[in-house]
Amino acid sequence: MVATDNLQMPQGQSPFNLSAYMQQRQIQVEAALDSAIPVIYPEKIYEAMRYSLLAGGKRLRPILCLATCEMTGGTLEMAMPTACAVEMIHTMSLIHDDLPAMDNDDYRRGQLTNHKVYGEDVAILAGDGLLAYAFEFVAANTKNVPAEQVLQVISRLGRAVGAAGLVGGQVVDLESEGKADVSIETLNFIHNHKTAALLEACVVCGAILADAPAADVQRLERYAQNIGLAFQIVDDILDITATQEQLGKTAGKDLQAQKATYPSIWGLEESQRQAQHLITQALAELAPFAQKAPLVAIAKFIINRTH
Amino acid sequence: MVATDNLQMPQGQSPFNLSAYMQQRQIQVEAALDSAIPVIYPEKIYEAMRYSLLAGGKRLRPILCLATCEMTGGTLEMAMPTACAVEMIHTMSLIHDDLPAMDNDDYRRGQLTNHKVYGEDVAILAGDGLLAYAFEFVAANTKNVPAEQVLQVISRLGRAVGAAGLVGGQVVDLESEGKADVSIETLNFIHNHKTAALLEACVVCGAILADAPAADVQRLERYAQNIGLAFQIVDDILDITATQEQLGKTAGKDLQAQKATYPSIWGLEESQRQAQHLITQALAELAPFAQKAPLVAIAKFIINRTH
Repeated sequence: MVATDNLQMPQGQSPFNLSAYMQQRQIQVEAALDSAIPVIYPEKIYEAMRYSLLAGGKRLRPILCLATCEMTGGTLEMAMPTACAVEMIHTMSLIHDDLPAMDNDDYRRGQLTNHKVYGEDVAILAGDGLLAYAFEFVAANTKNVPAEQVLQVISRLGRAVGAAGLVGGQVVDLESEGKADVSIETLNFIHNHKTAALLEACVVCGAILADAPAADVQRLERYAQNIGLAFQIVDDILDITATQEQLGKTAGKDLQAQKATYPSIWGLEESQRQAQHLITQALAELAPFAQKAPLVAIAKFIINRTH
Repeated sequence: MVATDNLQMPQGQSPFNLSAYMQQRQIQVEAALDSAIPVIYPEKIYEAMRYSLLAGGKRLRPILCLATCEMTGGTLEMAMPTACAVEMIHTMSLIHDDLPAMDNDDYRRGQLTNHKVYGEDVAILAGDGLLAYAFEFVAANTKNVPAEQVLQVISRLGRAVGAAGLVGGQVVDLESEGKADVSIETLNFIHNHKTAALLEACVVCGAILADAPAADVQRLERYAQNIGLAFQIVDDILDITATQEQLGKTAGKDLQAQKATYPSIWGLEESQRQAQHLITQALAELAPFAQKAPLVAIAKFIINRTH
């Protein structure tokens, strides 16, 4: 282990403790999200937005944003509004994906989906409200960062969620459902856009807020693309191998829906090998950075997680 | 007529020709919107976004933004990305409002609604894509305006469409449907948020882009709030008095849905009087401005329109 890996460690001796790190950051992110959306009139919409936004989860996206900002020389405070925004965007995409007209899911993160609690109309609006607020929140609350960089962040976030990102991936996913002949290129397109694009934005925006040099931003883009695709391959694997209790959502759903997945094209063993390869490539991109322990540990966590 | 009203006139003699002005601006806005969204893979989502965005309409919101920016000393070029963004946001709200889970409308602007053509899933995503792209477009394409002001614009746009704006108004509207006892305060809340908030953002953002003084921005806020509410009162009146052909959408729909409207609370005559009073107040706010002819004419157009 190189010395730079030890910089985040309390004693400078013990290996980096990702679990403790994640827990600490989760508490900070939860507090920021909680205070970002107070409940005022009309209460129902704010409650619906908060219901899904504060439903727990690993907070992987905001933590990636915060960790990258710190690694590239910025502060937690600079990145916290953007970290909250990526979680708002992610939550919006879950609320809309779960709708009857889309994936028609009843459970998410171990609780009823937004539309099962608040109705389809309010769920659509809660997603819209979270999406709009994400951009407002970054624009109005980012401190100690030149406005030009904040505009770059907003531009990146918009691209990650729009037709060139999440939305485009979801459209191809919907088109591919029930098709027997989905190619690996199409599957990669879906997940590069549905999953990797937002993870990439988290990392890249963290680096932009810290004013990282362009070459570093590009390395981090590749890091994020690789862990993003690995994340989805592992998700597909877990859908087959994990139980519903572990996932907090309906397991085996891909098989039931006859969805094309990495295991359905490559098999389980090759899927695992490919995910490992992507993580190895991601770690290589981190080589030049000091204080990289959190991003290293997150990449390893993605391949080793059980839910 | 004071001399300043004549500044926009080609000959300096004839009265301001709103129809010619709107037509010219519409052509410019249509061209900007058309080139803002090219059709690439996956084509379906870009086609769905373009289907509703390029479906015509008066383009009142972008024109208000452009006119205010010019009136307060800015240029068309400074305001065009924001003008496009407000139309993207407005179109998003129409697509989502028309969904079966919301108002369940089959026709809009004289053509089938988005979900009738592309399906509910793609219509939801087309709205999400337009909303995300609106913010990206302003952040990435606004030129010759200090970044700080562009951030203020993004913040205002976000507030106008989120729970503190459009989304909040729509939630109260949905809650009020079928209720016999909707108060005038609730009706005002609905329309101040569903209609006036975005019109206000159009005008205010135009002024911010031109770096107008705070006192001028506040006058223009009040102008926009007044024409926004008048716009809705006239809409309610036209729903009763105009034909389907004139409106390009189903007429008499409010009555069928037993929706509370200004005429249902005040009657037609008092509604007309209140709308006229709001327009008079709006015009008073324009008193200090030179080159105000377009905003004056737009306020008068709102009260006098027949569809």
